[in-house]
Amino acid sequence: MTTLIADTAMLEKALVEAASGVEKMLDALVVVPDGREAKVFEAMRYSLFAGGKRLRPLLVLASADIFGVDRTQALRVSAALECVHCYSLIHDDLPAMDDDDMRRGKPTLHKKYDDATAILAGDALLTLAFEILADRETHPDPYVRTELVATLAKASGGAGMVGGQMIDLLAAEHDYTEQDIFRLQHLKTGALISFAAEAGAVMAKASDQARRSLKGYAADLGIAFQIADDLFDVEGDADVVGKAVGKDASAGKATIVSMLGIERARAQAQILADQAIEHLANFDDKAAVLRAVAQFAINRRT
Amino acid sequence: MTTLIADTAMLEKALVEAASGVEKMLDALVVVPDGREAKVFEAMRYSLFAGGKRLRPLLVLASADIFGVDRTQALRVSAALECVHCYSLIHDDLPAMDDDDMRRGKPTLHKKYDDATAILAGDALLTLAFEILADRETHPDPYVRTELVATLAKASGGAGMVGGQMIDLLAAEHDYTEQDIFRLQHLKTGALISFAAEAGAVMAKASDQARRSLKGYAADLGIAFQIADDLFDVEGDADVVGKAVGKDASAGKATIVSMLGIERARAQAQILADQAIEHLANFDDKAAVLRAVAQFAINRRT
Repeated sequence: MTTLIADTAMLEKALVEAASGVEKMLDALVVVPDGREAKVFEAMRYSLFAGGKRLRPLLVLASADIFGVDRTQALRVSAALECVHCYSLIHDDLPAMDDDDMRRGKPTLHKKYDDATAILAGDALLTLAFEILADRETHPDPYVRTELVATLAKASGGAGMVGGQMIDLLAAEHDYTEQDIFRLQHLKTGALISFAAEAGAVMAKASDQARRSLKGYAADLGIAFQIADDLFDVEGDADVVGKAVGKDASAGKATIVSMLGIERARAQAQILADQAIEHLANFDDKAAVLRAVAQFAINRRT
Repeated sequence: MTTLIADTAMLEKALVEAASGVEKMLDALVVVPDGREAKVFEAMRYSLFAGGKRLRPLLVLASADIFGVDRTQALRVSAALECVHCYSLIHDDLPAMDDDDMRRGKPTLHKKYDDATAILAGDALLTLAFEILADRETHPDPYVRTELVATLAKASGGAGMVGGQMIDLLAAEHDYTEQDIFRLQHLKTGALISFAAEAGAVMAKASDQARRSLKGYAADLGIAFQIADDLFDVEGDADVVGKAVGKDASAGKATIVSMLGIERARAQAQILADQAIEHLANFDDKAAVLRAVAQFAINRRT
C-alpha cells in the first residue's frame, strides 16, 4: 500500500513535469509570425495548448531517462510527437470524420475557427513534427534524427495511425471481429504509443533487444489504455471526461468493451498491464515510471 | 529558331522521362496492403496516378543532373515531393477549402471516394514523403537525409505552402495588395518549386552559393508559372486545362493577372523567366533543362 502511494506520487510528479516541459518546448517551437498566415499558427496553438494528459510526452521522457538521454533533446521529441497526436485529433474531430464539437471541455478547432483552418492547422502540425525531428538541436547524430523521422512516419502514416483511422471509419460498413478491433486500435492509438516508448532507445542508439522490449511494453499498454478509454465511454461522466460520452455505443461502433463486456474487458486490461510491465524485466529502477504508467493505465479518472 | 526547336525537344524528352521515372518509383513505393486500411492506399494511388505535368519531379531531376547525383536517389526525392504536391491538391480540393469537383479531367478524390478518405489519403501522403526521405535508400549520408527532410518540411508547412494556402483562404475577407498576392504565391506554390530546384544541390552537398542560385531561379520561376496558371484561368479552355476555369475571377479572388491586367502580367512573367535563367549563369550546359523550363514557363498549353 505504501508502495502504491509512492508510485502514485511518482507518476503524478512525472506527469506534471512532462506536461510542463513539453508545453514550454511547444511554446518556444510554435511562434505566431507577423504575416497573414498567422491564423494557422494561432489555430495550431489553440489545439496544442487545449490541455490533455500529455501521456505520450511522459512516455518519451520516461523512455529517455532509462538511457540517460539529454532532457532538452527528449523534450523536442516529445513536442514533435505531441504535434502529430494533436493533428490527428484535429482531423478526427472534423465533420467529415467523427464530427465532434467538444474536446477536453472546449470547442474543437473547427468549431472555434472553421473546417478549412482546422484542416490546414492539422497539416502544418504534422509537417512541423518532422521539421523538429530533423533539426540538429534534437540530436547531434544525423543518423539518429533520420531514425526518429522514419520511425515516427511509419507509426503515423497509412500503415500506422492513419490506417487505423481508415479502418475505424469503415467500421459502420462491416461486422468487425474481435481481431479486427484489436488491429484497429493497435494501429490507431498503439502506433504512436509505441513510438513514444521506443524513442529513448532510438535516441540512445540502444540495442535492438531494448527497442523490442519497449515496443512489446507499448503494444500491451496501448490496448490497455484503449480499453480504459472505452470503459470511460460506457461508464464515464461527460463533465469529468470533457467530451461526449456514450458516443461509440450510440454510433453502433464495436469496441473491445462492447465485444467482451465490461467485466471481461476490465480483466483483459489488467492482464495487458501486467504483461506490459513484464516486458521491462531487463531494465532496472530507471523504468519505474514506465511501470507505474502501466500499473495505473486502467485506474485513471480521465 | 533551330535552337528553340532543339530546346523544345529536349524539354519534352526530359518531361516524359521525369513523368515515367517518378511514376514507376511511386508505383513501387505505394503498395496497397492486404488489410482493411487498403482503401486509404487505393485513394492515395488514385490521386498520385491521376496525371499531371510532373513539373516538380522534372525540376528535381534537372537539379540533380547538374551535380551528377544518382538517378534512382533523385527519383526517390522526386517521388517524396510529388506526394506532398498531391496531398496539397487533395486537401485544397475539399468542400471546406476550394470545393473543386474535377481535376485533370477526373473527379477529385473526395468526389471519387468521400471527404474523410480524402483527408486521410492526404495525411498519409504527407507522412509518406518524410518516410521516403529518411530512408537510407534515398541517400547514403544521413546528414543529407535530415537536410532533405528539414528543407521539405519548411517548404511545406505553416511558414511555406500551408501558410500560403491560409493566406489564400483569407483573400475573400481582405483587399490584398500586389505585394500580398506575390507573397501568397511565393509561399503557396513557390516554396515547393524552390525545394525541387534546390534538391540536387542538397543531395550533392554543393556550396551555399549553388543553393542560393537555385533558390533564386526557383523564386522567379515560381511566380512566372503562377502568372501562366492565372492566364489559363482567364483565357483557358476548360477542356484543355482539365479543371474549372474562370474560377478565381468568379470567386472575386485577386490574382497577379487581375492586378496587372493580361498584357502587363504576361510581360512580367517574361521578365521573371529571363531573371530565372540569369541565376543559372554559374552553371554550364548541365543546367540546360532548367533554362528550358524557364524559357517555356509562360508558353505552356496546359
